[in-house]
Amino acid sequence: MNHRIVCGTANRALASEISSALGAGPVAGEVERFPDGELRPSVDGVRDDDVFIVQSTGPPVNDNLVELLLMIDACRRAGADRVTAVVPYFGYARQDRRSRGGQAIGARMAASAIAAAGADRLVVIDPHTAALEAMFAIPVEPLTAVPAIAHTLLPAITPDAVVVAPDLGAVKLAEHYASVLGLPVVIVRKTRVTGASVRAEELVGQVDGRPVIVVDDMISTGATIEAAVRLLLENGARPDIVVAATHGLFVGNAVERLAGLPLRRLIVTDSLAGIESLALPVEVTPIAPLLAAVIGRNTAMSPPPTPDDR
Amino acid sequence: MNHRIVCGTANRALASEISSALGAGPVAGEVERFPDGELRPSVDGVRDDDVFIVQSTGPPVNDNLVELLLMIDACRRAGADRVTAVVPYFGYARQDRRSRGGQAIGARMAASAIAAAGADRLVVIDPHTAALEAMFAIPVEPLTAVPAIAHTLLPAITPDAVVVAPDLGAVKLAEHYASVLGLPVVIVRKTRVTGASVRAEELVGQVDGRPVIVVDDMISTGATIEAAVRLLLENGARPDIVVAATHGLFVGNAVERLAGLPLRRLIVTDSLAGIESLALPVEVTPIAPLLAAVIGRNTAMSPPPTPDDR
Amino acid sequence: MNHRIVCGTANRALASEISSALGAGPVAGEVERFPDGELRPSVDGVRDDDVFIVQSTGPPVNDNLVELLLMIDACRRAGADRVTAVVPYFGYARQDRRSRGGQAIGARMAASAIAAAGADRLVVIDPHTAALEAMFAIPVEPLTAVPAIAHTLLPAITPDAVVVAPDLGAVKLAEHYASVLGLPVVIVRKTRVTGASVRAEELVGQVDGRPVIVVDDMISTGATIEAAVRLLLENGARPDIVVAATHGLFVGNAVERLAGLPLRRLIVTDSLAGIESLALPVEVTPIAPLLAAVIGRNTAMSPPPTPDDR
Amino acid sequence: MNHRIVCGTANRALASEISSALGAGPVAGEVERFPDGELRPSVDGVRDDDVFIVQSTGPPVNDNLVELLLMIDACRRAGADRVTAVVPYFGYARQDRRSRGGQAIGARMAASAIAAAGADRLVVIDPHTAALEAMFAIPVEPLTAVPAIAHTLLPAITPDAVVVAPDLGAVKLAEHYASVLGLPVVIVRKTRVTGASVRAEELVGQVDGRPVIVVDDMISTGATIEAAVRLLLENGARPDIVVAATHGLFVGNAVERLAGLPLRRLIVTDSLAGIESLALPVEVTPIAPLLAAVIGRNTAMSPPPTPDDR
Amino acid sequence: MNHRIVCGTANRALASEISSALGAGPVAGEVERFPDGELRPSVDGVRDDDVFIVQSTGPPVNDNLVELLLMIDACRRAGADRVTAVVPYFGYARQDRRSRGGQAIGARMAASAIAAAGADRLVVIDPHTAALEAMFAIPVEPLTAVPAIAHTLLPAITPDAVVVAPDLGAVKLAEHYASVLGLPVVIVRKTRVTGASVRAEELVGQVDGRPVIVVDDMISTGATIEAAVRLLLENGARPDIVVAATHGLFVGNAVERLAGLPLRRLIVTDSLAGIESLALPVEVTPIAPLLAAVIGRNTAMSPPPTPDDR
Amino acid sequence: MNHRIVCGTANRALASEISSALGAGPVAGEVERFPDGELRPSVDGVRDDDVFIVQSTGPPVNDNLVELLLMIDACRRAGADRVTAVVPYFGYARQDRRSRGGQAIGARMAASAIAAAGADRLVVIDPHTAALEAMFAIPVEPLTAVPAIAHTLLPAITPDAVVVAPDLGAVKLAEHYASVLGLPVVIVRKTRVTGASVRAEELVGQVDGRPVIVVDDMISTGATIEAAVRLLLENGARPDIVVAATHGLFVGNAVERLAGLPLRRLIVTDSLAGIESLALPVEVTPIAPLLAAVIGRNTAMSPPPTPDDR
Repeated sequence: MNHRIVCGTANRALASEISSALGAGPVAGEVERFPDGELRPSVDGVRDDDVFIVQSTGPPVNDNLVELLLMIDACRRAGADRVTAVVPYFGYARQDRRSRGGQAIGARMAASAIAAAGADRLVVIDPHTAALEAMFAIPVEPLTAVPAIAHTLLPAITPDAVVVAPDLGAVKLAEHYASVLGLPVVIVRKTRVTGASVRAEELVGQVDGRPVIVVDDMISTGATIEAAVRLLLENGARPDIVVAATHGLFVGNAVERLAGLPLRRLIVTDSLAGIESLALPVEVTPIAPLLAAVIGRNTAMSPPPTPDDR
Repeated sequence: MNHRIVCGTANRALASEISSALGAGPVAGEVERFPDGELRPSVDGVRDDDVFIVQSTGPPVNDNLVELLLMIDACRRAGADRVTAVVPYFGYARQDRRSRGGQAIGARMAASAIAAAGADRLVVIDPHTAALEAMFAIPVEPLTAVPAIAHTLLPAITPDAVVVAPDLGAVKLAEHYASVLGLPVVIVRKTRVTGASVRAEELVGQVDGRPVIVVDDMISTGATIEAAVRLLLENGARPDIVVAATHGLFVGNAVERLAGLPLRRLIVTDSLAGIESLALPVEVTPIAPLLAAVIGRNTAMSPPPTPDDR
Repeated sequence: MNHRIVCGTANRALASEISSALGAGPVAGEVERFPDGELRPSVDGVRDDDVFIVQSTGPPVNDNLVELLLMIDACRRAGADRVTAVVPYFGYARQDRRSRGGQAIGARMAASAIAAAGADRLVVIDPHTAALEAMFAIPVEPLTAVPAIAHTLLPAITPDAVVVAPDLGAVKLAEHYASVLGLPVVIVRKTRVTGASVRAEELVGQVDGRPVIVVDDMISTGATIEAAVRLLLENGARPDIVVAATHGLFVGNAVERLAGLPLRRLIVTDSLAGIESLALPVEVTPIAPLLAAVIGRNTAMSPPPTPDDR
Repeated sequence: MNHRIVCGTANRALASEISSALGAGPVAGEVERFPDGELRPSVDGVRDDDVFIVQSTGPPVNDNLVELLLMIDACRRAGADRVTAVVPYFGYARQDRRSRGGQAIGARMAASAIAAAGADRLVVIDPHTAALEAMFAIPVEPLTAVPAIAHTLLPAITPDAVVVAPDLGAVKLAEHYASVLGLPVVIVRKTRVTGASVRAEELVGQVDGRPVIVVDDMISTGATIEAAVRLLLENGARPDIVVAATHGLFVGNAVERLAGLPLRRLIVTDSLAGIESLALPVEVTPIAPLLAAVIGRNTAMSPPPTPDDR
Repeated sequence: MNHRIVCGTANRALASEISSALGAGPVAGEVERFPDGELRPSVDGVRDDDVFIVQSTGPPVNDNLVELLLMIDACRRAGADRVTAVVPYFGYARQDRRSRGGQAIGARMAASAIAAAGADRLVVIDPHTAALEAMFAIPVEPLTAVPAIAHTLLPAITPDAVVVAPDLGAVKLAEHYASVLGLPVVIVRKTRVTGASVRAEELVGQVDGRPVIVVDDMISTGATIEAAVRLLLENGARPDIVVAATHGLFVGNAVERLAGLPLRRLIVTDSLAGIESLALPVEVTPIAPLLAAVIGRNTAMSPPPTPDDR
Repeated sequence: MNHRIVCGTANRALASEISSALGAGPVAGEVERFPDGELRPSVDGVRDDDVFIVQSTGPPVNDNLVELLLMIDACRRAGADRVTAVVPYFGYARQDRRSRGGQAIGARMAASAIAAAGADRLVVIDPHTAALEAMFAIPVEPLTAVPAIAHTLLPAITPDAVVVAPDLGAVKLAEHYASVLGLPVVIVRKTRVTGASVRAEELVGQVDGRPVIVVDDMISTGATIEAAVRLLLENGARPDIVVAATHGLFVGNAVERLAGLPLRRLIVTDSLAGIESLALPVEVTPIAPLLAAVIGRNTAMSPPPTPDDR
């Protein structure tokens, strides 16, 4: 059973790199776009192959999601033996619960649609919710870019540095970075002032005079990062700040926001295309080696090691 | 069990009209749009209701389709007793088969995703493919706007008029119009010139000196309509032409194309929003009465009568 | 994984030819028939094999369909690795939509039952409805016998011949023949006489003095073919007529009907057994080579190339 | 929610009686049969109704089964609120296990197809296998005709009579009769002669000089009944024999076989049509009252009481 | 459609209280336990009812889970119109992800089994993972006991009190308490000491001289609570401590552990039976009113309001 | 695709023997048990393997069943290519029907849960109900230990011995033993005394002075065996009795019961662990060879040959 890399329009360069790394032949898959916006992908020569469709569902998220569903459908109908959706950035992952009545759960909607289209397996990188795999009946292989990114940070790390989680949701990720880098974790949390509904941000841990590495799974509008950086500076952090995230969406006025901060380095992966054309000096950690290793079965199918809850 | 009309962003006015006609209370449903393009709809107060989500999946088709999936998810999780997706214009219906190997079947992809999201029933109007209902395990109620549109044509019809199908795919629809209007059908077909791969359009039936009514299920870029009208004029049709279609997408340069034709009337329904703001004099036949009647159970759940194939 | 050809009672000779062509060993499968009409098929030695069950669902259609379901069940329970239903003639394909309220959609019923029984894939030849594959979630490989039949016609074709579609539903098939043979297409259509409900047949294209090749996907009672031939003769076609169809059902008084027509050649495939014992001089184009090639993976899994609709 | 009785061709009279008993209006459902044997049922006016499709799947079993599948499909697509398949005689029930490798399990095939077609519930009478309901995920209501038949036997019963199970599979049913009639059970069993593969029938219990009532769930070819009766007579049973069974298939040469036996009474229900036209004096116990009571919800949804196994 | 309360062995008293509150008649459901440990529940008279099965899946968790599955199966087969599993304490919820490769995801296993058994809806109270509902395709109604418990705390609250989250996983719950009580939140977190793998607990927020209210979703072995209380005391918290949790499992040596702490009050709900017989002074907040209100449809089907993540 | 043997806690020794026999490497699978009774299994290195999970669901049945479900979930998520549940003793098999209204069908509940967890195939040995496989959509391979046990009996068999079925449910099994051993079958049946509800046990066949071999599929509390043995002795059987069964549960006071009987030999297989530590002299027939042969594909996937019913 041959490996075959297939891609839609979201990550063509990444797909080519993976395919080269695996010696898996040219990447299959073209997508026609009609004047009314309907997409029609087609793939050739995947019959009886072990197919990996590389497609992040970042912005434009709905176009990319539907294109992924169509690619899966096309591969299955073309006789692929097994279809793995490789979705480095999994959109809608933030909607993993209803925060009030009447809402949809976008992550489950996406999971149900992907499964209904006929995917056999899913590979994701640092999804926003760790419970993503529990929403799927098909096997999900959650990977992490933390070791790869941390590796690029290591040479310039000084022992007084701290890893900062810009909100409670990022604490586990920050602990993973801290474990690789041998540093402590500082947390930004929103807190209530007694007897009032006013919320203020509070820093848990010492940062005065220290270099800080703010980490998150993704940078969307940059607002969370900006608030954290400003709070860190107010609390005496050294104005020599590193920001690292797996996924760089840079939507809204993220570029302006981040350009206004005293960042020494800003690092993301190429899970989403188009980083190099941003008006912002972003370093890119490539994920093709990680994905090629997994697809080539050199690593075990397993989630990143995280401390157990109990 | 109460009827409840819910809508997304695609057809708010239509949903309100349906709800008013039924006395079904205010329309439920709001949709938040995040900076990264993700949608989060919410509905209130639909618990144990018989919910009808009104949402055409016209352009932007992928946004509207995903929004529909999220609306269905939201209604089900909010405890709706039954969820009917009312999709007057059903996008991706043209992809009802693979025209060559390796393609996706978009209509089935959409059908599978809608079913996976949890819809119990579907209502559509003049879908591009009659086999659409066969792609669903859930009941599909295909309605037709032909009688309503034909009713607006009737007063001005003269006995020498003909109904024109601009391609073979429109013949059944044209016959339905012809049956209501008491007129003959003329067909435009593409034909092969012997021994060569050149294709030319040919008119089947007489149009010289006659008023013509060109009908189709949808107007997309207007190219098919334009070609038909030009052929009709070349063949002597009276330059007093009526064009009628159920769905008006008007994408690409459809407005310019149609503005350049000697049309007396151009008629579509309000299955897709925004017709009134086009730079084109389009008459709109409202479909709210048709949908309200079906939802209110005043009509039987059945497809439009069509002659049997055998 | 070994190929294994399995068959029921409908196409034993065809199954043997396919198996011989593939060197796939003796055909497996026996069917016991009890006095009450219940069937009990059994297969031996298919464990871990890649099984192909050859069974057309022509008359007696319900017996053959249920036998197919039982064969699939037997193969799955016997541990087959993959079960492909090879159904050269797919019964109930004409019921791909409801033509009025309250009807069943037979094609979808058959599709659902075949999938529920546990088939992994389906292979069909020239199904009556192109949307058949969209009714299945499992991959469907629609093949066509047109090139094979056209090949037998070629030697005797003269340049003035025309291909005739006996109704609108046969136009796509006729265009496929025409493309292979390099001939134009003439269409028979039913048309309405203005202001009345009387329908008459009309010929679209010139046939006077020409040899005609009437093509269709199937010959059932022969009524459509007979009506077309009589209309062609009335319009001056040379009384030297060839009729070609993929599937020869010859039910009702088809034999009498066709025997009364001035046919030079009558050609069908052996998708349905029993052709050779008809009291009618029918030429048979064998489909075993086509099926063996597909099963042996020498050809891509793809539908016949057809012009796109847009 | 209205009750609505729908029927195919297998049990029209029974369906009418049930509908009358319930005051449920005229029975819906017509079935067109095409020359090629394909069936196309249609139903009218069942939208939002609680539909009961009455259709035994006796001979011709495959036609009746497929017709049932099509009826279910038609009712669902027509908008029925709930579809209950009332299958008094459930064909293929004897195939509830594989007796050797490679066989199909017909009962499960039928169950899967009925569920896939969209039935919500099933009602059966004295199915051959008690495990039938365990093959369905949908609720199954197994009813029994034993009390009704026993009631017609009671007036003429003498205290020295015995109930006879003609094979081990009929023992539970015989015990049910015996319990209602207050009589002992005698069993016919096949037994092995030591050291040889010869099998002989053996009577377990005393019958000499006694009137016997041979009971079974069904009479198919009558061979089992004939063998039991001959063994009973050889063992001295009074030649004044009653035979009672729920389902009368009378296939093969059952009529001749039974006509040659000294039977005083032969009783079956009208679960299968056509009993009255047999050349055999058969008494018919009507089951319409039983089914009407269940459909009308006058009785609990439960299987017949049987002694627990443990 | 009548409400009907059904219960297994886990929460008989609770089920009775709910049924009384609703006037829903006697609680249905008995469970036979065989010598080999197999369970056989039965329910009577639920046909066409709207059934609510009350069964927490606390210890013995596997017995209670399987009993729940059997109860669902019994209710569906008995003809219940709709089956809602009311599982106040949902076992296996902590396994909502794999913390290392090769593990099972217990929460999803339980969700899949409950759905496969045929439940139509699920009601839970303060499940350990907020993503639980996203693992289900069926609607899940997550309720919270926080307002009810907070209400019992309110009279004795002084303005200098603080709510304590004993680990990061409890922060959201603590914020809910804090919002109702108008108090700030203090967090216990495990932190890494730089350059070493030693982890220490750290207090985020001020507690010296203040009364503290430690809250969590559940008390299992009491180890988390004990560690938090000891840390609070070391940091100067007033030795007048309140502990509140929704679910009281009290397994392992929880009773001894908690008995050794200077607790003023220890509060849980009766989501799990047997609290009153513990050798520990535990106050019980009843949840029957909450569940009765939801079942009686007096409240909307919605999750507890929580601040959105973005 | 490598074979990989995985096991839970129920049958570790058996799993090791199978793995050794196959040369399939060390057995994978560990199970953590939390203080609240929740289980968390994990497996390593099964990615792309053909995995066989060996786990009988004997007492404690619910723990073992849930552990099996978790093991299946773990193997699937770890990327196993195919997961076969090898369940030598299948608990809940006795609940294959409802014996009165309102009951669950435990066998189907277990089947549905196992399929929902993601098993691809099932292997069982002498399940209590032959219809078990019909409850599964996935292939089930029912094996039998009868030949293996009979082989150990053969040397000491005398020609005057008889095989005894202790109730009607054991007759088919007894006939299988009898066929291998060349002996006749005697049956114990419960019978009704005329006109009363008193039931007595009756012996069908001659046993006076003969050695008897009482066989059954399982020994649970031993009550059935004890009753049969006492009846045999009362009827003159030689007090030199052999008891053989596939599965030895020995629950309740089975050990005391059987210790009080004059048994010469008591034979079961090691389908359930712990036989060797019973205070009872039980001979164990190993089933590892049987299972290893099937897993190694040396035998066909088929049920034990049994005489057909018709």
